[in-house]
Amino acid sequence: MRDFLPADKARRERVLSTIRSVYRLHGFDEIETPVMEDSSRLSAGLGGDNEKLAFGVLRRGLTVDDIRSATHGSELCDMGLRYDLTVPLARFYATNRAELAPVFRAIQIAPVWRAERPQKGRYRQFVQCDIDIIGEAGVLAEIELITATSSTLAELGITDATIRINDRRILFGLLDHFGFNDHESTLITIDKLDKVGVDGVVAELLERGASEQSVTSFADYLNSSTGPTPATRDGIFAALPAGVAPEAVESLAIIADAVADTANVQFDPFLVRGMGYYTGAIFEVAHPALGYSLGGGGRYDGMIGRFLGTEVPAVGFSLGFERLVDLVTLDDDSETDQAALVYDPAASLDEVLAHKRALVADGTRVRLVAKTKNIRAILTQLERDGYTRYAFVNPGEPLAWKTIDAAS
Amino acid sequence: MRDFLPADKARRERVLSTIRSVYRLHGFDEIETPVMEDSSRLSAGLGGDNEKLAFGVLRRGLTVDDIRSATHGSELCDMGLRYDLTVPLARFYATNRAELAPVFRAIQIAPVWRAERPQKGRYRQFVQCDIDIIGEAGVLAEIELITATSSTLAELGITDATIRINDRRILFGLLDHFGFNDHESTLITIDKLDKVGVDGVVAELLERGASEQSVTSFADYLNSSTGPTPATRDGIFAALPAGVAPEAVESLAIIADAVADTANVQFDPFLVRGMGYYTGAIFEVAHPALGYSLGGGGRYDGMIGRFLGTEVPAVGFSLGFERLVDLVTLDDDSETDQAALVYDPAASLDEVLAHKRALVADGTRVRLVAKTKNIRAILTQLERDGYTRYAFVNPGEPLAWKTIDAAS
Repeated sequence: MRDFLPADKARRERVLSTIRSVYRLHGFDEIETPVMEDSSRLSAGLGGDNEKLAFGVLRRGLTVDDIRSATHGSELCDMGLRYDLTVPLARFYATNRAELAPVFRAIQIAPVWRAERPQKGRYRQFVQCDIDIIGEAGVLAEIELITATSSTLAELGITDATIRINDRRILFGLLDHFGFNDHESTLITIDKLDKVGVDGVVAELLERGASEQSVTSFADYLNSSTGPTPATRDGIFAALPAGVAPEAVESLAIIADAVADTANVQFDPFLVRGMGYYTGAIFEVAHPALGYSLGGGGRYDGMIGRFLGTEVPAVGFSLGFERLVDLVTLDDDSETDQAALVYDPAASLDEVLAHKRALVADGTRVRLVAKTKNIRAILTQLERDGYTRYAFVNPGEPLAWKTIDAAS
Repeated sequence: MRDFLPADKARRERVLSTIRSVYRLHGFDEIETPVMEDSSRLSAGLGGDNEKLAFGVLRRGLTVDDIRSATHGSELCDMGLRYDLTVPLARFYATNRAELAPVFRAIQIAPVWRAERPQKGRYRQFVQCDIDIIGEAGVLAEIELITATSSTLAELGITDATIRINDRRILFGLLDHFGFNDHESTLITIDKLDKVGVDGVVAELLERGASEQSVTSFADYLNSSTGPTPATRDGIFAALPAGVAPEAVESLAIIADAVADTANVQFDPFLVRGMGYYTGAIFEVAHPALGYSLGGGGRYDGMIGRFLGTEVPAVGFSLGFERLVDLVTLDDDSETDQAALVYDPAASLDEVLAHKRALVADGTRVRLVAKTKNIRAILTQLERDGYTRYAFVNPGEPLAWKTIDAAS
């Protein structure tokens, strides 16, 4: 968990504001949920491995007897901090469905918490930016999500990112085609392709007890594959053995065609995405400068309705804000004029305050600084904090502005 | 704790954005701290009664033995959720002081958590908007805080609010003047003046063992007081017995003079503010429509340095966002054009998507809606969600826009 100092915080808020406004233009509506959810919901099986990383919030009013009769810490918690924004969305939708549009396009921009071991690039508190479309069973949902995400990345100046797409049904179709029986564990192995290569995947599949024939023919397919290819209808069909998951391939082709003009999309037949709840199309944002994805998502039709007991179609796309914010090349807020008034602390404040008032009324951001002997130190600090001009307040005299350039 | 639906959330974000930008113009810089702080800091005595309301976060990896040997839940928590933004600020300042300007003007806009019993207008998660000036011992700090707060309220369209000011040293001077010995408990009683009136205060002071002579002369003073008066130099002096806390009265008079043109400020010699850590000027925002304050603050020189072991001057002003947001009369975001495209789900999506793309590129917020037989229901929902125009997407035809008016 980290503190954010002024320059970092200002940058984060600018990026968040851009993300929010692009998503809004695309017809999404922002919602907010409390940071705590009932423990029972957080551990209902919707969160995958993240469920184990949830911080529990100690129940209030526990007696010594309550504590001593517990066999596990979780018995002392009714609530926990959310580890993602998907479980809260499912709960939100169950609670508020009557007031939402039949096809509900949600924005959630909010922190989540995971009790990860601290390591580079992983934080225990971090911000996720999720968009989800609930109630749309057709590919329009996937298309709108990919378009809005791509548009947001472009607006942030991130032009090198690629959105990789695949479909869980295509993966299962491939596994059937090659005769693998244990779908889930085979997918876990294929998910490691980037890290361990074809040989590593082959070794692990054999180790897991897959038939030699399946593994051999699958290895031939892997070796013949060129990896992620531009997602065109023809490209998708060409990258797959004929006849695999025809419905899913057709809908992925429609999605690819629809976003071709606006997004940089690749078809990756070996894209798996970790979470077990995906039921259709899946996405991931890859960036050449990063060894990990900038975000991802997919269709998860079974899940949003879990707390309602009905099946509700849903697709989501999440951007990892902490990874994103470092790549952004937004201009800083130099559009706001930033001026410093350096005043003599022994003199009357009236003129200082009058000058400040006039500048603020003009839309200028103003900092008052008490004059010291070390003007150089004052200017260095002002420059570091983004101020571009300063003036001494001398009684009865107009302000004489000077440019801040500590180096001179 | 509450969910925020799209209309509420959009309104909250607009208000937050206004508050943030006014504070920034006045030279304050936003920072952010993690929602969790070490339990030892949260219970270091800086949080007053709120310390008891802190939610504890269960320590990870507790064994059954750890649990069974605990005699209180707090022993099972290393961290807790912050109950205010002042304790985190003190910790932040101790951690990051080297990188901050010598006079540091902080903005914190963030949620806090308190385990209150649910009641009307009280929430367990709520947003506070704090500004603090650290490192300025002079009245300039109070003046900038009052000016920035007043300017923010004006920008939000809240014109009926009054900022009441007093000084802890004036209160103590008054108590000395009337011969009260037990300052702290006498202040607790005076703080109830609004609720129990002069008779109630007199009864309680006697009950607490104050001398009859002190209580009688203080009662005369209370009865002769006209309550909060416009804060002018003359008004402040006139409202107090001669010779009470002359230094504090002089500095309050300077503050009052300096903000007279920009803020609606009253001097209230019986304003106490609950927290024990105030050392000088104190403020409170009163509004005629509310039976409670919209915010408050004051000088608390002893506290920010607590985690550093040095004395650091500091003044803060906090606005209660949840109370504020209901009073705000900001225009809604009608400056963004909101348009709906109603499409035939059986037809090709290409044209629908091309229309959306063109509108979004133009800065129009667009929602796609699948056509159903019940057009009335569609229009009602669109109107409720702030959309002002719609068009049917008919293959090969230009869009014919219609105004949304579900009533017609």
